[in-house]
Amino acid sequence: MKNAVLITIGDEILSGNTVDTNSNFIATELKNIGIKVSQILTISDEIETIKKAIDSAFQIGDLIITTGGLGPTRDDKTKKAIAEFFNDEIALDEVTFNHLKAYMERRGRLEILERNREQAFVPTKSKVFQNHYGTAPCMMMEENGKLLFSLPGVPYEVKPLIKDQIIPYLQEKFSLNYITTRIVSVVGIPESILADRIEDWELALPENLALSYLPVGTRVKLRLTATGENEPLLQQQLEEEIQKLLPLIKDNVIATSEDKIEKILAEILVERKLTISTAESCTGGELAKMITSVPGSSAYFLGGIIAYATEKKIDILKIKKETVEEFTVVSEQVADEMAEGCQKLFNTDIALSTTGVAGPGKGEDGKEVGTVFYTVRVGNQAVTSRLYMPHLERLDFMHFVSQKVIQDLVGILISEKN
Amino acid sequence: MKNAVLITIGDEILSGNTVDTNSNFIATELKNIGIKVSQILTISDEIETIKKAIDSAFQIGDLIITTGGLGPTRDDKTKKAIAEFFNDEIALDEVTFNHLKAYMERRGRLEILERNREQAFVPTKSKVFQNHYGTAPCMMMEENGKLLFSLPGVPYEVKPLIKDQIIPYLQEKFSLNYITTRIVSVVGIPESILADRIEDWELALPENLALSYLPVGTRVKLRLTATGENEPLLQQQLEEEIQKLLPLIKDNVIATSEDKIEKILAEILVERKLTISTAESCTGGELAKMITSVPGSSAYFLGGIIAYATEKKIDILKIKKETVEEFTVVSEQVADEMAEGCQKLFNTDIALSTTGVAGPGKGEDGKEVGTVFYTVRVGNQAVTSRLYMPHLERLDFMHFVSQKVIQDLVGILISEKN
Repeated sequence: MKNAVLITIGDEILSGNTVDTNSNFIATELKNIGIKVSQILTISDEIETIKKAIDSAFQIGDLIITTGGLGPTRDDKTKKAIAEFFNDEIALDEVTFNHLKAYMERRGRLEILERNREQAFVPTKSKVFQNHYGTAPCMMMEENGKLLFSLPGVPYEVKPLIKDQIIPYLQEKFSLNYITTRIVSVVGIPESILADRIEDWELALPENLALSYLPVGTRVKLRLTATGENEPLLQQQLEEEIQKLLPLIKDNVIATSEDKIEKILAEILVERKLTISTAESCTGGELAKMITSVPGSSAYFLGGIIAYATEKKIDILKIKKETVEEFTVVSEQVADEMAEGCQKLFNTDIALSTTGVAGPGKGEDGKEVGTVFYTVRVGNQAVTSRLYMPHLERLDFMHFVSQKVIQDLVGILISEKN
Repeated sequence: MKNAVLITIGDEILSGNTVDTNSNFIATELKNIGIKVSQILTISDEIETIKKAIDSAFQIGDLIITTGGLGPTRDDKTKKAIAEFFNDEIALDEVTFNHLKAYMERRGRLEILERNREQAFVPTKSKVFQNHYGTAPCMMMEENGKLLFSLPGVPYEVKPLIKDQIIPYLQEKFSLNYITTRIVSVVGIPESILADRIEDWELALPENLALSYLPVGTRVKLRLTATGENEPLLQQQLEEEIQKLLPLIKDNVIATSEDKIEKILAEILVERKLTISTAESCTGGELAKMITSVPGSSAYFLGGIIAYATEKKIDILKIKKETVEEFTVVSEQVADEMAEGCQKLFNTDIALSTTGVAGPGKGEDGKEVGTVFYTVRVGNQAVTSRLYMPHLERLDFMHFVSQKVIQDLVGILISEKN
């Protein structure tokens, strides 16, 4: 199996200013064509550091992909480091320059600055993959059968370069082993008890299969990875092992294929032709965003309300003023009425609601930070629950709660079916 | 200045299954106390790999922080690797065991499984930092004045361990140089032209100041970092340099302190006592979520609508049916009416709206994927713009558009003031 090393170049990652999402994207794409990422390295934009990183990466990988360090500004040094590492010169590439010129003209920039022109300079031995969404081209170097790809750092330039050009190139260049993955999502059982329960099954797995535990919120994802030459055979093998696993934990399994909870939900809603709406307070739109992040969600998601101010909960969602007065706005009763009002407003089969205090400041009624009530309403049945998560930061809180609400809904829909 | 190396252990990052957000958090926290992260390394959960990574990390860093690889399951090997690296034994730590027992009892788990008990085994030379939000403790090893901290991988366990325990410990342990940062946000000028315009200023910066260009959407963030012993002096130095910079690009600067656009907006809205609401279609809640992600946003954000289905735009936002029929739902006119309806519904000073096609499927009227119209309405003034971003993936599209809408609003509010 081919091994890749990813090198992220840039002080903005090391300083904590930017989260490195490129590595995640590239790793997923490589995995799909059977290339394993064995290391990810984030380094500073310095020539010697870059050369040293390339050297050590080639000792463990057949393939290096670098991102970042190719901008038109003075603090980028990657191209120079690559040329030096491969004992090459940098020269103007006509094809790249014409591509760049056309790209900039399309954007109304008729005058090419010297530092833009510098971007069409590439190592003479490099193969260039043109960047259709930015000015820095992708360059590939090859030595002793090993490859180095150097890409810009902007995620929306990286994605099409990887997907449309580099992945097809690699598929043609190598004959690769396939890696196939299945995810089994398990809820309502702590990781350690789960591990005990499936221990015999785990120990008996064939050698080309590997198991990982990935806890996400209150769900544990079991990832089963199979490696081999024959893809259909791998899929069959995974299916067989999952069939052996299911009887051991069948009441706790919520999905055996899709990975993300919002996609698991999408599958169920589409299959059963159900519609859904949301009424959010403390999750501030995150719940709706998670649901709409799935392509095709407009088939079942009709809309949502973020009723941040209490009077808007009363005006738009028609919750009773007396309920707020009696129980406060962060209460089981208000969550319940929000879901009911939302279901009526959007006329959906399902409605979800959240009301709570994300913090760090206390809520209107002095309710403790980290408290949330949420309702899952399916048809005429409503289930309201409480969560208390004072240790989560604001954004993590919004995300955790949204994930939990969707997970509970999936649980209810699945138990309905059984 | 002290140098740190972060090591992330776990196949879930290398396989692309999980984005590594811990490193970002830790890097930011370390930066604030003047510790520089010089490398971030993500490796597989294998004893030899971990030992090798620790060895090479100690060659460049004074401090190593590892995350991951401490769970109660069979695929975690970090603790063993650390003990071997430091020629130490692993033994049961009574204090840690009692802490673990109390933690589990609070959660209603009265019976401690053998594999939970294993978590209270730590290297005998280690100093333990107890984990209040999970079962794996944090262990610190010290050798020749260099430190290694080993943490679990779950982000909401990592954050309090770092913030409440490790950062204060490091502050006391070392006398550190300060690192202070200011961000100047620039819009409406391409990176290369900006770089040309401020080149003389950049070249004349004092030696202890460093400049980075960070493009985010259509904004360029200039990050100015100062390093030195005296914090107030550094802040003064940064302020002086920014005052020299401003005359060169003053029409394009939207902020000189806050970094994130939603926080820049928060400052302005609070200062001017303005309220805001949102009406979203293609951004699916992301716009509201960005605004509500700021602590204290309930002071100005009254609420939002996600009107995904066209009939809900008509019902709730009161856009005219004829407008949809004449111009289609993805149009300047509908964006405009959505903002107006939203402003009325929530009775706010400002209303924002988005309508577009996030893709990958085409919109109802065959409008091209990647098209969006958005309106920024302040008082009685509305500005509607169009964006066309076909190359962005769904989630990136939702985020890019939301960011641009807020950025435009900030631009309008600032130009109003001048």
